[in-house]
Amino acid sequence: MTKFLSTVAVLTLCLGRAEAQGEKPRARDLGVPFEGTPGPLNAITDVPGVEVGHTTLISGDSVRTGVTVVLPEGKRAKNQVFAGWFTLNADGEMTGTTWIEESGILEGPVAITNTHSVGTVHQAVIEWSVNHVQGLSWSLPVIAETWDGGLNDINGFHVKREHVFAAIENAAGGPVPEGNVGGGTGMQVYQFKGGIGTSSRVLESPHGRFTVGVLVQANYGLRPQLRVAGVPVGLSIPDLMPEGRDSGDGEEDGSIIIVVATDAPVLPHQLKRIAKRASLGLGRNGSTASNGSGDIFIAFSTFHKNIGTEQGGLYDLKMLGNSDLSPIFRATVEASEEAVINAMVAAETMTGRNGTKVYAIPHDRLREALRKYNRLAP
Amino acid sequence: MTKFLSTVAVLTLCLGRAEAQGEKPRARDLGVPFEGTPGPLNAITDVPGVEVGHTTLISGDSVRTGVTVVLPEGKRAKNQVFAGWFTLNADGEMTGTTWIEESGILEGPVAITNTHSVGTVHQAVIEWSVNHVQGLSWSLPVIAETWDGGLNDINGFHVKREHVFAAIENAAGGPVPEGNVGGGTGMQVYQFKGGIGTSSRVLESPHGRFTVGVLVQANYGLRPQLRVAGVPVGLSIPDLMPEGRDSGDGEEDGSIIIVVATDAPVLPHQLKRIAKRASLGLGRNGSTASNGSGDIFIAFSTFHKNIGTEQGGLYDLKMLGNSDLSPIFRATVEASEEAVINAMVAAETMTGRNGTKVYAIPHDRLREALRKYNRLAP
Amino acid sequence: MTKFLSTVAVLTLCLGRAEAQGEKPRARDLGVPFEGTPGPLNAITDVPGVEVGHTTLISGDSVRTGVTVVLPEGKRAKNQVFAGWFTLNADGEMTGTTWIEESGILEGPVAITNTHSVGTVHQAVIEWSVNHVQGLSWSLPVIAETWDGGLNDINGFHVKREHVFAAIENAAGGPVPEGNVGGGTGMQVYQFKGGIGTSSRVLESPHGRFTVGVLVQANYGLRPQLRVAGVPVGLSIPDLMPEGRDSGDGEEDGSIIIVVATDAPVLPHQLKRIAKRASLGLGRNGSTASNGSGDIFIAFSTFHKNIGTEQGGLYDLKMLGNSDLSPIFRATVEASEEAVINAMVAAETMTGRNGTKVYAIPHDRLREALRKYNRLAP
Amino acid sequence: MTKFLSTVAVLTLCLGRAEAQGEKPRARDLGVPFEGTPGPLNAITDVPGVEVGHTTLISGDSVRTGVTVVLPEGKRAKNQVFAGWFTLNADGEMTGTTWIEESGILEGPVAITNTHSVGTVHQAVIEWSVNHVQGLSWSLPVIAETWDGGLNDINGFHVKREHVFAAIENAAGGPVPEGNVGGGTGMQVYQFKGGIGTSSRVLESPHGRFTVGVLVQANYGLRPQLRVAGVPVGLSIPDLMPEGRDSGDGEEDGSIIIVVATDAPVLPHQLKRIAKRASLGLGRNGSTASNGSGDIFIAFSTFHKNIGTEQGGLYDLKMLGNSDLSPIFRATVEASEEAVINAMVAAETMTGRNGTKVYAIPHDRLREALRKYNRLAP
Repeated sequence: MTKFLSTVAVLTLCLGRAEAQGEKPRARDLGVPFEGTPGPLNAITDVPGVEVGHTTLISGDSVRTGVTVVLPEGKRAKNQVFAGWFTLNADGEMTGTTWIEESGILEGPVAITNTHSVGTVHQAVIEWSVNHVQGLSWSLPVIAETWDGGLNDINGFHVKREHVFAAIENAAGGPVPEGNVGGGTGMQVYQFKGGIGTSSRVLESPHGRFTVGVLVQANYGLRPQLRVAGVPVGLSIPDLMPEGRDSGDGEEDGSIIIVVATDAPVLPHQLKRIAKRASLGLGRNGSTASNGSGDIFIAFSTFHKNIGTEQGGLYDLKMLGNSDLSPIFRATVEASEEAVINAMVAAETMTGRNGTKVYAIPHDRLREALRKYNRLAP
Repeated sequence: MTKFLSTVAVLTLCLGRAEAQGEKPRARDLGVPFEGTPGPLNAITDVPGVEVGHTTLISGDSVRTGVTVVLPEGKRAKNQVFAGWFTLNADGEMTGTTWIEESGILEGPVAITNTHSVGTVHQAVIEWSVNHVQGLSWSLPVIAETWDGGLNDINGFHVKREHVFAAIENAAGGPVPEGNVGGGTGMQVYQFKGGIGTSSRVLESPHGRFTVGVLVQANYGLRPQLRVAGVPVGLSIPDLMPEGRDSGDGEEDGSIIIVVATDAPVLPHQLKRIAKRASLGLGRNGSTASNGSGDIFIAFSTFHKNIGTEQGGLYDLKMLGNSDLSPIFRATVEASEEAVINAMVAAETMTGRNGTKVYAIPHDRLREALRKYNRLAP
Repeated sequence: MTKFLSTVAVLTLCLGRAEAQGEKPRARDLGVPFEGTPGPLNAITDVPGVEVGHTTLISGDSVRTGVTVVLPEGKRAKNQVFAGWFTLNADGEMTGTTWIEESGILEGPVAITNTHSVGTVHQAVIEWSVNHVQGLSWSLPVIAETWDGGLNDINGFHVKREHVFAAIENAAGGPVPEGNVGGGTGMQVYQFKGGIGTSSRVLESPHGRFTVGVLVQANYGLRPQLRVAGVPVGLSIPDLMPEGRDSGDGEEDGSIIIVVATDAPVLPHQLKRIAKRASLGLGRNGSTASNGSGDIFIAFSTFHKNIGTEQGGLYDLKMLGNSDLSPIFRATVEASEEAVINAMVAAETMTGRNGTKVYAIPHDRLREALRKYNRLAP
Repeated sequence: MTKFLSTVAVLTLCLGRAEAQGEKPRARDLGVPFEGTPGPLNAITDVPGVEVGHTTLISGDSVRTGVTVVLPEGKRAKNQVFAGWFTLNADGEMTGTTWIEESGILEGPVAITNTHSVGTVHQAVIEWSVNHVQGLSWSLPVIAETWDGGLNDINGFHVKREHVFAAIENAAGGPVPEGNVGGGTGMQVYQFKGGIGTSSRVLESPHGRFTVGVLVQANYGLRPQLRVAGVPVGLSIPDLMPEGRDSGDGEEDGSIIIVVATDAPVLPHQLKRIAKRASLGLGRNGSTASNGSGDIFIAFSTFHKNIGTEQGGLYDLKMLGNSDLSPIFRATVEASEEAVINAMVAAETMTGRNGTKVYAIPHDRLREALRKYNRLAP
């Protein structure tokens, strides 16, 4: 365990703040024409208070995994916020959602890891919460996953409690590392290398300026289906398919976890609607949500704070009227669409378990495809 | 049509205000020991502003039906309130619920009729709404039903638009007629005569005094299952079963619509939870929710007003913290349990279509059963 | 009423069989590059047994409406089939879905009309069913709607029971009229003229040859969002916007009802998954499912017949294993995407209530946009 | 850890087979008059093939916890069965349910433990599955919980992977130990000692003989609400309340996990309906499903086997028609009602963490209450 832990420490140092988005091109930098106006970081952390932390585990031939945490109000806060969730296709796990559905409240971080580390991360988040949140006597944490068993030795159970603690303790606002990091380390999307991606939108309304931020752990889709900004990029790049005996059979792979954050004053049932819109972003990218995909989305709002699922009291709330949700829906669609492409663009070619090799989408060929279809932004 | 309409007019006159609950014994008056503290009327109209209207159609040998409306804020208001719904067993209809589930808002009355008059009532509520609610350009009304084809000539389609208009126009606060009235006219419960019943509970809390009111249109259940305040009354009165060739085969009959109203400051997702508690009241009464039963419940709160499903804006709201919902849950269970028994106690023996005869539960034998099991309240 | 009825008769004659798809170009004929292999008619009626009927009401200045029925097994059959449903955004109505969700079974036709004719159609379908289906003692019909109040005098309640009977009686297999017909007569999509559209896909599998057919009543979306086969056609044709004082405020318009039929041996819970995939077809076309949109989908399978919601017995069934659903999911996405574009391509410019004018998408400019983005199929 | 493990070993030995139900009186033996006909063991294991295993951890002053597993087809089988789930109130966790909802299939055991051991048990079930189920490459196990932090040092995380392996390996058919065993070790119900309980019903039908079995981990409810067979036992025994500073504040305690097994040929959507009926059993016992209760139910059928969530193929199935479900619904209500009382009757007074003492319901006083209300069975 020491080995992985030190790997983490090193990686967390180098990824946490230094290797930020600014230093690698993102999808917009390559000329992908997305709609809407992103926030300054074009990241979920544009929503004030939201913090993201990764622990990335890359070690030896076959450890290619990790854990990513999203803290709605940051690691020093109670993190009790309104939330809603939706599943487009449910071959996956997001624990804690049963209580979110009913209580309307998310308590604590959202953690994302690989399929076979859900339990360890669940246990670790409880342990961290009990030790760091005053007065906490119980916890039903939200742990989600996608399957990285192609590149990662998933049954080695390499994610340990220390890795979870590190991801939380290293969580921060600011630019969010994308691609082969955290829970996204060993993931694939449209049979290219995938992983973590993020994006945001800023909305001006008569009722204030609202931000919608999205973070994805993308691990789904077959190559021919890939559309980027409507362009059939997957058909344009039929080569560079995953290599190796565990590279998949071209069916049923995948999953995507999407976290949507906003600072708009919306209620739990409205957040469920917002979460549902992530589907439409996937639709734009060509997803058909195959049987084996765990496409699970959670949305939360940081507007109201300190509302515990088991607290009483009389709260003063604000609520946006329903028709003012439409721009937030649109922003969610757009940011979900973009976050997936950001994950692809940031990811790097990786070789892992049993020599499986998954290629990153080549930036030049992506631009070439966009140009061919007259969609390359200036 | 004139005939039925005048019947209505007469019945509405005599039932609407004159024949109120005070003049007939209710379940508590007979010594049924219920829990909790009812409001002054022990009716859904204890929730301030709530109005109920019935049109009762009893005519000739086989017209035994009608329509009941519940107006959250009264017939002169916009009736835009937070709402939630739940179905215990769904062999029934409550239109408009799809939008309530998503928008969290009920607009307009809840109307309850027989299964084959849903369309007519739907059309009539739209027509009434378009003519009476300023600025209304569309409506997705909430119309629910239970099946009265045993006693009533259901395929004669005897409920007409005028009957719906009359039920709305005659709606009022105050005591609520129970038993063979309105939509409940031809209904059966536990193979006794059923129909409309109501009950309420008043709660004192640090955050104010809240009322929970329930109205049921009860039409479900087999005799042996009937429990009253835990007492096996159904087993105690095995005789007085429905008579006639359409009296049912002892299986699969039934349905119950339950409307829960409260003035507590609760949000849509909390109202869904409240609606769900009606199930537990039915459980206490012995229901097993058979396949053929349409057990559909809607709950609304009158605390927040004038929130349209398609309105924008920034609203100031109040919300009870989740743990303060538990007393409201309990009140909903208790009032649902009692409202069903009130429907039975108020109902009167009826003969209808093809000579079908359904007996009212005899008050003396109900008391006798309670006494036998040492449960007769003083 | 006579006037409309005769209008119907005439229209039904001319639309029913003669003016079929073959005589007007469809989206594929214009060079829109869709994925997958359609059936011979590229229509929902490629699923054997499925019949579609329209009654179209166009009369005077402001009657622009109608009703469309889809009969899973044809008007002479019992029409008891497995079904599932899903709502992407629920500002709309589809009655009967509560029981479908629980029973897993659709009984009778799916009828689609305008928002304010749901009740009339509901009543008429019950009446028709009682008179035509042997042994039927009750019915909870499935009636869906979209809002045509821009072009149509929706509060004139012009759809009458005779129109519903006519739509059912005229229902047939074969080519399906598209565009300004039936329930789709007065509808708009992406601020072009919309209405009824259809498409299908044929799948070869080791377990047989399956067809997926889709029919839409399309009435949603804002112009800038329109994508056709990924091409930003809406941005390419910013003119030809609806004209007149009731042409909409550019927000919140819309709704889309989608009916998915298949002959694959799938169970109710699998059909719910299939229905959900229609969302992804809308995502491809640019939908963001705004607050005011009623995007409600139903899927049924004709494989198993004569399974009533209140029948007992022991049935022999077949079921496709879950992983064999993925091609059906893909087919549903593709056919939903195409059916919407087919509706647009078939629709014709219409002037209606208060002089509101809604333009059909010009075929030449659609082709021009596809050519500009190098997506015009040969 | 050795200490607890050996404790387990000992307890498993003594509880596993020897201390079976026969040697302690159960609720029926005390004269509680339940409805329906139980199977020979009156246990979930009356459903052929179902196995139950417990690991009970009782050690020192404050370790009072454990884990219980239910294996639908036994520990040597693949355990791929149709399933459905429902939550009455969701302040709790049952992992894996998102995929069950969509796939209709349960793969592997259902494990029940304390709230803060969900992660450990999740991880252990994956590890066990990977090592024991041929060809398994991933797992989304079903782990449920209730909170035992009153009697148990829940934040000591005393459940270890070895305890989970032991529970699975010791799983067996035959009599099921009840009360202070397995996951139920430290649980409370209606402020008496609670824990594991079980019951079953046998149904004769024209389509065969079906068994419905229920197992509960009961940990909910306030004393005054307790009804046993309709008798207000909670009001009859107001003393013997939990003692000690962690004995609870009389609000919001609790949770109950209910597992329903049947061998009837029912489909996933029908199993969801069956799971829902457990609510009505709780209603009979007086539950109001308070905000803090995690009342989560899962139902599975062993009729169809070896249907994996990610398998393809064409399956031959049998299905009971919907109206034949009503007796199964009734059986589920009855067995749920009885299993809770069985848990109470089997449980023994326990002293745990910080000296908290929770009393078992005294058998004599239970009989006395039943006698007072003339409900004591001969």
